[in-house]
Amino acid sequence: MGRVTDRLGELGLELPPVAPPAGSYQPAVRDGDHVWTSGQLPMVDGAMAHTGQVGEGDGLVAPADAQALARTCVVNALAAIGSVVDLDDIVQVVKLVGFVSSDPSFTGQPGVINGASDLLGEVFGDAGLHARSAVGVAVLPLDASVEVEVVVRVR
Amino acid sequence: MGRVTDRLGELGLELPPVAPPAGSYQPAVRDGDHVWTSGQLPMVDGAMAHTGQVGEGDGLVAPADAQALARTCVVNALAAIGSVVDLDDIVQVVKLVGFVSSDPSFTGQPGVINGASDLLGEVFGDAGLHARSAVGVAVLPLDASVEVEVVVRVR
Amino acid sequence: MGRVTDRLGELGLELPPVAPPAGSYQPAVRDGDHVWTSGQLPMVDGAMAHTGQVGEGDGLVAPADAQALARTCVVNALAAIGSVVDLDDIVQVVKLVGFVSSDPSFTGQPGVINGASDLLGEVFGDAGLHARSAVGVAVLPLDASVEVEVVVRVR
Repeated sequence: MGRVTDRLGELGLELPPVAPPAGSYQPAVRDGDHVWTSGQLPMVDGAMAHTGQVGEGDGLVAPADAQALARTCVVNALAAIGSVVDLDDIVQVVKLVGFVSSDPSFTGQPGVINGASDLLGEVFGDAGLHARSAVGVAVLPLDASVEVEVVVRVR
Repeated sequence: MGRVTDRLGELGLELPPVAPPAGSYQPAVRDGDHVWTSGQLPMVDGAMAHTGQVGEGDGLVAPADAQALARTCVVNALAAIGSVVDLDDIVQVVKLVGFVSSDPSFTGQPGVINGASDLLGEVFGDAGLHARSAVGVAVLPLDASVEVEVVVRVR
Repeated sequence: MGRVTDRLGELGLELPPVAPPAGSYQPAVRDGDHVWTSGQLPMVDGAMAHTGQVGEGDGLVAPADAQALARTCVVNALAAIGSVVDLDDIVQVVKLVGFVSSDPSFTGQPGVINGASDLLGEVFGDAGLHARSAVGVAVLPLDASVEVEVVVRVR
């Protein structure tokens, strides 16, 4: 066990097995000093706790719940990265893009994606501070509420 | 003719000329050991066979048709890359993002974007295995059904 | 003052202060020879002149106005880059992604994002010619009409 997995354990988190992708792509690719992840969905044990658009109102996923889903996406992103490098070799989280399946009236995507960004800060400290884009989209694969992709620099 | 164009020929595909972009940008940019493409639309001879949102139902582009459009986007991406480097110098397809103009009830974006990913696997083998994100968006330029951007590593 | 800020001054533009991000992320991150920006919104003095979806019709942001907003996003992106490197060290604008909050019938995202691309050309000349994707999304943070992210190469 390494420092990153120890830190995740302190936060009550465990890296899941990486699901094989359904197509000619990989969960993550090492590219010289970088690892790029595929877009990660908030799957836990092969299922999503919530699906559907995020927003305020009946039939929508509440922003606080979506923030927790974004956190799960990052756990899955770390598992994907860990499938191609040692997580302790991450020296900087460079970029994160968060897509939020959004009711057209919902404009709180940054708060949702803070669930992803904050976890990276908790795990990596200053090395977890990344550039980030958060956008609202109409619909995501498998009706996911959140999708997160990450680029990290490794030694 | 190189290996990649030969392989495309075996698949019945030919690289089209690269259309000049309509603005202060380029179809692709070489950046050290990488080439980044602009978002590619499924244009063939300057026109799109299908336009509009993808989904199940009347007036929507069927997912199988959209998958073929994603394949066309990759052909155009390879033409764009070939405008700045020799395609035989590609050593790894690093990242692909696929945007699918989606009816709000359509959640099969991964299947659509497999049209792009699978072609890269057919052409490049293991070097074509990339990280990927697939997302559903409300609308794309010129009412395209699919848009694909690619990052590759070159020697 | 450097060449880039001088050039911006000739264009009547001034770099704003960089607003602190609302979460565990940074306006821009230096990553070896690159700087990646966070998604930039068209804020001026902490407010947006226009919000809402872009399109033709009552209650929508006109495409020409949205083009000006995309230009503002680039000014903010340059400010963000300038917070981590000297802007005169930019040797190439590599990639730009422009997200346009779009009425479902609006397909002119490239024209809107030309506001961003053209400014980079005016400031950097050939070094400003980048790869680019323009997509239409349902909604953006704080109901912004446009969001732009940039990757640049630096010496």
